[in-house]
Amino acid sequence: MDELIKRIRKFRDDRDWMKFHSPKNLAISVSLEAAELLEHFQWKDDEESAVHVQTKLDAIEDEVADVAIYLLELSDNLGIDLFKAICKKLDKNESRYPVSRARGNAAKYTDL
Amino acid sequence: MDELIKRIRKFRDDRDWMKFHSPKNLAISVSLEAAELLEHFQWKDDEESAVHVQTKLDAIEDEVADVAIYLLELSDNLGIDLFKAICKKLDKNESRYPVSRARGNAAKYTDL
Amino acid sequence: MDELIKRIRKFRDDRDWMKFHSPKNLAISVSLEAAELLEHFQWKDDEESAVHVQTKLDAIEDEVADVAIYLLELSDNLGIDLFKAICKKLDKNESRYPVSRARGNAAKYTDL
Amino acid sequence: MDELIKRIRKFRDDRDWMKFHSPKNLAISVSLEAAELLEHFQWKDDEESAVHVQTKLDAIEDEVADVAIYLLELSDNLGIDLFKAICKKLDKNESRYPVSRARGNAAKYTDL
Repeated sequence: MDELIKRIRKFRDDRDWMKFHSPKNLAISVSLEAAELLEHFQWKDDEESAVHVQTKLDAIEDEVADVAIYLLELSDNLGIDLFKAICKKLDKNESRYPVSRARGNAAKYTDL
Repeated sequence: MDELIKRIRKFRDDRDWMKFHSPKNLAISVSLEAAELLEHFQWKDDEESAVHVQTKLDAIEDEVADVAIYLLELSDNLGIDLFKAICKKLDKNESRYPVSRARGNAAKYTDL
Repeated sequence: MDELIKRIRKFRDDRDWMKFHSPKNLAISVSLEAAELLEHFQWKDDEESAVHVQTKLDAIEDEVADVAIYLLELSDNLGIDLFKAICKKLDKNESRYPVSRARGNAAKYTDL
Repeated sequence: MDELIKRIRKFRDDRDWMKFHSPKNLAISVSLEAAELLEHFQWKDDEESAVHVQTKLDAIEDEVADVAIYLLELSDNLGIDLFKAICKKLDKNESRYPVSRARGNAAKYTDL
C-alpha cells in the first residue's frame, strides 16, 4: 500500500491539486465513484449482473480503482493507516457477529 | 492485501454469508458505507471538518475501513486484483491529466 | 408544492439555517438521505423487501420525505420550479425511449 | 402531484417496465440520480458553485427531476402519499429542533 500512497501523493502534488482535496471533498468523491460502480448493476438481477460483469470487467475495474484511490488518499491525509484500520474493524466485526449467532442469518447482518 | 482478503473471506464463510454477497449487494454496501463516511462532513466547512476529524478519528477510521472491506471483497469475488487495478488506473490518470495542462486547474479535474 | 416550500423556508429561516444550506451542502444531504432510504433494502431480495416494506413503512416514509424536503429546498434556492422540471424531464424521457423500441427492454433503460 | 404520478405510471406501463421497478431498484436509482446531482458540485467551493449553477442550470434541473421522478414512483408503488409524508416529517422536525435551541446551531442540525 505504501507504494500506492506514494504514487497518489506524487500524482496530486505534481498537479498542485492538494488545495481541492479537503477531507470533505475526498469523501464526496469516494461516494460519487461508489455510485458509478453501483450504476453497473442498476436494474439488473443476478443473472444479468453475471453477464455484465464478464463483458464490462475493465470498466468495473476502473470504478473499483477510483473508489480505492480516493479512499487511500483520504486515509493518508487524515493520518489513518488503512491496513491497520481494516484489521481493527475486522476484529470488531468478529466480536459483534459471533459465528454461533450470525451463521446464515441476514437479519443480524443488516446492522453491520 | 492478500492477508486482508483471506481474513475477509474467512469471516464471510464462517457465517455462511456468501449467499447475500452478490456483486450488486456488495456495490450497494460500498455506496452505503461511503455515505456514512461522507455524513461526518455534512454541513461542515473546512474549519469545522478539521476539528471534527480530530475528535472523531476513531469513528471515521471505522467508516473508511467499512468501505475498504466491501471493496476488497467485491474485487476478490470478481477476480479483480485491486493492487493492479489501482496501478492501471493511476497510469490512465497520468496520461489523461498531463502535468503541463492540469496544474492547479480544477476544471480539468472535474471530469476525472 | 407551494405550500410545502413555504413551510420548508419558514422552518429553515426560523432557525437561521440558510447559512448552512449552500447548493453543495443540500446536494450532499439529498444524497445522504437517499442512502438511508436505500439502506432499508440492503441485503434483501424481493420477498424480504416486501415483508420489510410492510413492517417498516413509517420509517421508509420518513426517509422518502427527507429526500423530498432537501430536494424541494435545493430547487427553491436555485430558482427551479420542480413541477415544471419534472414535466420537462418526462417529455425528454418520452422521446428518448419511444414505446416501440423500449417496451420490456431493460438494456435501453440502463442509460436513462 | 397526482398529475405527475399519473404520467409516471403511464410512462412506465407503456414500456412494460414495472418488472424492473422493485422498491430496491427504485431506491438504488434515487441514490444514483442523487449522486449525479451532487457531481455538479464536486471539488467546487461556494463561489465556483454559484457560477456553475448559472451556466448549467438546465442540466441541474434534469438531475433534480430525475431524483424526484424515481422518488414519486417509489412512493406511489409503496402506497405512500408523498405530500402527507413530507408534512408529517416537517411536524417531526419542528418538534425535534425547537427554534429556541436550534437557532443558528449547526451541531444540532447534524443529527436531523
